[in-house]
Amino acid sequence: MEIKTIIGISAGVLTAVSILPQILKVLREKKAQAVSPLMFFVLLAGNLLWCWYGLILNELPIVVTNAFSVGCDILMIVVNYKYSKR
Amino acid sequence: MEIKTIIGISAGVLTAVSILPQILKVLREKKAQAVSPLMFFVLLAGNLLWCWYGLILNELPIVVTNAFSVGCDILMIVVNYKYSKR
Repeated sequence: MEIKTIIGISAGVLTAVSILPQILKVLREKKAQAVSPLMFFVLLAGNLLWCWYGLILNELPIVVTNAFSVGCDILMIVVNYKYSKR
Repeated sequence: MEIKTIIGISAGVLTAVSILPQILKVLREKKAQAVSPLMFFVLLAGNLLWCWYGLILNELPIVVTNAFSVGCDILMIVVNYKYSKR
């Protein structure tokens, strides 16, 4: 594997997992984050564009890790919405 | 400007600004986020690797927007640390 690919995958995994503590926190406390859901829609739009950008560059690390982030963003939006109704 | 560059810059700007509401929230409430600072160190490491990856690919959108994110991450860590001491 190229060093470039290793760096790209590491970068993507790190930025992708950084959202996990927030999701876990909301799930554990069953209370929505005080942070605006708008933030996660902005993040979702950004991650989708990164996927597109990665496809154009034909760089799999960008596509795969941002696709994972897109999943996390959607999960966060759903969880946030669910617990903000209480 | 190439369409690729426009997509890359848009993607980077969106993912970079998504951290701003969190920083503003902590500054406004003068109270640290309940989210672990570890998250921001992970994000910082990830954004630094993205910069490196962007330099290898010679893709300025990746480098510039992640450099901005690195600045935001450091600001968030400093602000979080400052207000967690109260």
